[in-house]
Amino acid sequence: MQPHIQNMTGSYIRNILKAATKAEVISLAGGLPDIELLPKAVLEHIAYQQMSDSNLFQYGESAGYLPLREWIADEQQCHIDQLIITNGAQQGLDLVTRCLLRHRERIVVEAPAYLGATQVFNLQNLTIDWLPQLGDCNQLEHLEAAFKRAKVFYCVPNFHNPTGSLWSLALRKAVVALAEQHQVTIIEDAPYEALSFSDHQLPSLYQMAPNNVIKLGSFSKSIAPGLRTGYCLASPGASKQLLKAKQAMDLHSSNINQALTYGFVSSKSYKPHLKNIRQTYSIRMAALIDALSGLENVKVEPVQGGMFLWARLIGRDADTVTKAALETYNLAIVPGRAFMPVHDTAADEFVRLNFTNAEPSLINEAVDRLAQAMDAG
Amino acid sequence: MQPHIQNMTGSYIRNILKAATKAEVISLAGGLPDIELLPKAVLEHIAYQQMSDSNLFQYGESAGYLPLREWIADEQQCHIDQLIITNGAQQGLDLVTRCLLRHRERIVVEAPAYLGATQVFNLQNLTIDWLPQLGDCNQLEHLEAAFKRAKVFYCVPNFHNPTGSLWSLALRKAVVALAEQHQVTIIEDAPYEALSFSDHQLPSLYQMAPNNVIKLGSFSKSIAPGLRTGYCLASPGASKQLLKAKQAMDLHSSNINQALTYGFVSSKSYKPHLKNIRQTYSIRMAALIDALSGLENVKVEPVQGGMFLWARLIGRDADTVTKAALETYNLAIVPGRAFMPVHDTAADEFVRLNFTNAEPSLINEAVDRLAQAMDAG
Repeated sequence: MQPHIQNMTGSYIRNILKAATKAEVISLAGGLPDIELLPKAVLEHIAYQQMSDSNLFQYGESAGYLPLREWIADEQQCHIDQLIITNGAQQGLDLVTRCLLRHRERIVVEAPAYLGATQVFNLQNLTIDWLPQLGDCNQLEHLEAAFKRAKVFYCVPNFHNPTGSLWSLALRKAVVALAEQHQVTIIEDAPYEALSFSDHQLPSLYQMAPNNVIKLGSFSKSIAPGLRTGYCLASPGASKQLLKAKQAMDLHSSNINQALTYGFVSSKSYKPHLKNIRQTYSIRMAALIDALSGLENVKVEPVQGGMFLWARLIGRDADTVTKAALETYNLAIVPGRAFMPVHDTAADEFVRLNFTNAEPSLINEAVDRLAQAMDAG
Repeated sequence: MQPHIQNMTGSYIRNILKAATKAEVISLAGGLPDIELLPKAVLEHIAYQQMSDSNLFQYGESAGYLPLREWIADEQQCHIDQLIITNGAQQGLDLVTRCLLRHRERIVVEAPAYLGATQVFNLQNLTIDWLPQLGDCNQLEHLEAAFKRAKVFYCVPNFHNPTGSLWSLALRKAVVALAEQHQVTIIEDAPYEALSFSDHQLPSLYQMAPNNVIKLGSFSKSIAPGLRTGYCLASPGASKQLLKAKQAMDLHSSNINQALTYGFVSSKSYKPHLKNIRQTYSIRMAALIDALSGLENVKVEPVQGGMFLWARLIGRDADTVTKAALETYNLAIVPGRAFMPVHDTAADEFVRLNFTNAEPSLINEAVDRLAQAMDAG
């Protein structure tokens, strides 16, 4: 085993999620959609249909199941040859970074960061060039300095994990301009894109600079993670190279899952489903904000989409509170430190709170438990 | 894009397979099981059941779906913690090699070789240390020399692709002993293991040296490639490291596919299905051998399992014959050169012939077309 594999740590969050499966635990820890909102009858119908199509059981194309690629091409306004279906956006990220960068090369990443991304970069033994989160356009000097050292930037402009932040149009323009100027490739990770609470959609970085941006999409958050279906959208030239790597990595993603995904997105149930989850998640987010507003030593802002609130527990060590919450009060949450580089203390007072998978009736109880854990901590 | 990605070539066989989809073409080109032999009603029943299990749609464990791992552990006589479910054996190979080796390091591989393996090694920019095929125990000096230069050996001891060969017990013992002596890790790729025409099973290399061998299994050949379900079996220590990499690569493989696989292997239909495909494939192999025996300039030996015959077209250039076969006679086969290192001419007279997916009624016609293409070439 290579040393950098031995040095990798398993996902801290996955460990918390394991502990959170006990019935008495309320979990605001995972990034889980509420699967109970899926229309079962539709999926049953689609699955039944699939079984009669032998082709789905045979080897398929490395780029993916054609009807699904056509559907995505229409939605994303691109050519089907620019799309590769992946096993969730996670595989897309592994695919793209291993084609763009070799061991020890630098990738620019905001802190805090999606933990799964950090794991990919560690697996590939990349050097992560950490950057404070790009709150607005006033902090771009760090980014520009990093762009002089590195040629790839990883970011989550829509409802960031863990902070929930949404890049403004001005920030998008500024980052894309800088990337073009310094010939940096942007990896735009967009799993939460469909979970906007508003109908007003900002342009993706990919739309703004299609030759400089590779976009990763996912159906994990809008439909179901169990489908393990996402996609990679890149320029025609880049896609051609990425496709060879995807073929080597696992020949192709399962056509059974892709046909299930396609069957659902192309059904009459998809748009009402999206509308329903957006509305439901928005209501849950508001309920969580409302409950937290009763705690004077918690500072938190509402978000405009996604799955997470990023709450500051003023004057508290979030690790200690998180531990007490799980062990004594049966509440699972994730401390900010889990998303930070080692030794970076900037998020020591923060916790990530998921609102999408929380039973609305349990949100007040969850916040009561958080308050108790904070008092104990 | 990294230069070694740009230098990769797409799969030659996949290009032939694309051309082979025309209705008038008889294809002996792919490594495809005959999906029509699957009991559809059983799969329909299993798929219908799945839709009622919400957990399958949620995130799952990185190591895989527990009931399937328990089933495999029982079959392979190992602990479940030694098993990681992968997207086919192909992803298993990518997973294992990227954990064991870094860019430019050597991997020992027999020529001819499974093309998908070569693609993985090229994706990782490994140096392939080519070896003539280990026919019997008399040729081990090449292997021993290679083991002094390299620390990983990739092999397919059961019904090799493309040659169909099966390692004898003596060869297995000798290779395992050499690997232990030189502290070489063996990657035993075993996708065809279940396709033995005889009930007499030789021990796997893994069974003979569980601490030196990592075994890759697959349900693609015994059930269906579309399930994209395989597994990696390693020592407990190695599995722990591999699991971190798998988690980074794509979080986990689809539980929907794994539950479908489990539902089938644990049903009463699985053993009769296995018996049926073994018998059917054995009959097709014999029919192909019989038809080929009518051609005096073709030399071919029967195989004891798997999917392929490796036929020598005496005095012919197989590339030329293959091209003529496809373009003029509507027969798709794969020339031996496709499985060889560049500039290695040892397989220039050979072709790989698949017998599992050929309609038995078409086998004589296919061989007639081959004869015509050889006469023309």
